Amino acid sequence: VNISDLGESGLIARLKTILPTASPDLLIGIGDDCAAIKLDDNRLLLATCDIQVEGEHFHRYYFTPYQIGRRALAVNLSDIAAMGGKPTFVFISLGLPPDLPTEDFDDLQRGIADIANEFGVIVAGGNLSRSPAGLIVDIFLLGETTSDRLLTRSGARPGDRVFVTGHLGASIAGLRLLQAIHANPDKSELAPRSSQLVTAHTQPTPRIAAGQAIAASGWATAMIDISDGLAADLGHLCEQSGVGAEIRQTSLPIPPELPEVAAAWGVSPLDLALYGGEDYELLFILKPDTSDAVIAAINESAGVTITEIGRILPKEDGCRLLSDSVARIPLPPRGWDHFSSPPYEVGGGVRGELKEDSRNP
Amino acid sequence: VNISDLGESGLIARLKTILPTASPDLLIGIGDDCAAIKLDDNRLLLATCDIQVEGEHFHRYYFTPYQIGRRALAVNLSDIAAMGGKPTFVFISLGLPPDLPTEDFDDLQRGIADIANEFGVIVAGGNLSRSPAGLIVDIFLLGETTSDRLLTRSGARPGDRVFVTGHLGASIAGLRLLQAIHANPDKSELAPRSSQLVTAHTQPTPRIAAGQAIAASGWATAMIDISDGLAADLGHLCEQSGVGAEIRQTSLPIPPELPEVAAAWGVSPLDLALYGGEDYELLFILKPDTSDAVIAAINESAGVTITEIGRILPKEDGCRLLSDSVARIPLPPRGWDHFSSPPYEVGGGVRGELKEDSRNP
Repeated sequence: VNISDLGESGLIARLKTILPTASPDLLIGIGDDCAAIKLDDNRLLLATCDIQVEGEHFHRYYFTPYQIGRRALAVNLSDIAAMGGKPTFVFISLGLPPDLPTEDFDDLQRGIADIANEFGVIVAGGNLSRSPAGLIVDIFLLGETTSDRLLTRSGARPGDRVFVTGHLGASIAGLRLLQAIHANPDKSELAPRSSQLVTAHTQPTPRIAAGQAIAASGWATAMIDISDGLAADLGHLCEQSGVGAEIRQTSLPIPPELPEVAAAWGVSPLDLALYGGEDYELLFILKPDTSDAVIAAINESAGVTITEIGRILPKEDGCRLLSDSVARIPLPPRGWDHFSSPPYEVGGGVRGELKEDSRNP
Repeated sequence: VNISDLGESGLIARLKTILPTASPDLLIGIGDDCAAIKLDDNRLLLATCDIQVEGEHFHRYYFTPYQIGRRALAVNLSDIAAMGGKPTFVFISLGLPPDLPTEDFDDLQRGIADIANEFGVIVAGGNLSRSPAGLIVDIFLLGETTSDRLLTRSGARPGDRVFVTGHLGASIAGLRLLQAIHANPDKSELAPRSSQLVTAHTQPTPRIAAGQAIAASGWATAMIDISDGLAADLGHLCEQSGVGAEIRQTSLPIPPELPEVAAAWGVSPLDLALYGGEDYELLFILKPDTSDAVIAAINESAGVTITEIGRILPKEDGCRLLSDSVARIPLPPRGWDHFSSPPYEVGGGVRGELKEDSRNP
């Protein structure tokens, strides 16, 4: 028996039985977007980490060193956003191939520096190592929030309303475009027409302002960032809240460029939006009686459009999709699993090309 | 030009010019054992990280998964010890080969769990990823101390007295024994006779109690942990304090088993003690008029013998060794550099086999 037989959730369940994980000061430990540690009566320290391994999370043929650095910090910022927090200090562990050109090293730092400056994050430390087998970027990010604003995955209640920020499915489409262009440079004509999709994958924007606005509104009951795909992350949220949910297909914010690209590959834009992942948008839940004024205020502060896509149901109803033909379709919480799924490859099927960051265990 | 031409210190100097690194709340950033972040008027958050990459920091042929897990946390605990801090919460990023047996995964967790329990550390989060090219263990450790107890590398003054905890040179000797036994199983008779040396390498003990006792004494002016070797880490401390130092060869705490093992390889025990590294002992500096009672109290609380090995000199005197023939020999701050040194190999020379953790940049 090896770890691929267990899958990621099996491994996490296993390590939780072995490791010491409980402390009165640890309000949220393994299993949410960030850990939350009590600093005093109200202040909380948030902490998250995310490792990016060459050949597993990215290839250097379609990511520039700048993008690798920027993106590695972006995906961690997204975890802080999902708790409604403010990012503060970052630590950077790098495993570097010995033949990495100095210019690439500098570009990697510039990618980190640009997004750090954009979000007011200070680099407080890190670790450099030679890596015999490719580039490794492991980011550890601290942030802060207060107890009265903390938003976890577990507070959703039946009747609550389901929202997302931005668009869904853009990132996976961007990745497929990059892979298609690599496999067949003739297709590079596709790139400019789809530059927003490609940018969604290479330079995702963490929704820090949106997360803070949602948490500060006082009307939200749960939040998670969409890294594994809407269906999978909705599944995580519903499981931890002990609820079900219904998503309206016609409400899903599918990017305008997506249908043409999806049609060219013979896949459904809906599948990309539901199962694609790596969108790094926020999925958040508001109380049933949240006023239009509150929603408009969140939309205003968020810096990105927010869209209502469904509602929370009792647990026994499960998670389902209300399709445009009005039928109700079960919505399996599937997404990418690092251990039981094959590595994505150029030219594989949709599932074979999906790539998800693993969650905080 | 690639990164190997620059070496680790060159890379760190380079990234400091690119990344945002200054904040009023960041009392200590890049360049010490830990970062220190101000939480309130007196409380400080300590944070450190250390990445361990298979093939670079360890091989699985001589480290068990249990030892890899235990050691990865131990080397981070040593950084908290070097600031006189108390470790609190740990985050674990793992890159796992897909064919890793489940039993090895469990043993890795058990190694982490045992040392976490020993030092009261709680696992608050982490990240699992598949790694195509070998095991990666990246540990991020938080701790705490107070402003009035904080000990950095930069407070040593001429006339101060130089001490170390435990023994020097044991770890490198233990590594060489493991490598020799692997290359030539006939030598496995060596192992039992040298089990303390092997254990010093495979299961180093972080000097948490010693670090706290030294910081609490009020008589210490600087501290660092010995991960790069005494000469290199004394060099770091002297550089950051703007001083020189003289070490007495006859005072160095060389383990009793070391001379025999060193003789068998035709190397000098002194070289192993000065340049071997990975001892994870503490090098600490006390004021000139520290009383014997204070030193005895530190020794009592430390849980390990402490030894006075020299004194701090003015910067212009440099770092030097007072040898047993009474000559003064310059003590170059050399140690392992991840980027300009070749990977260590079984059967190589002493330098070629040395393996140092890279420092916090």
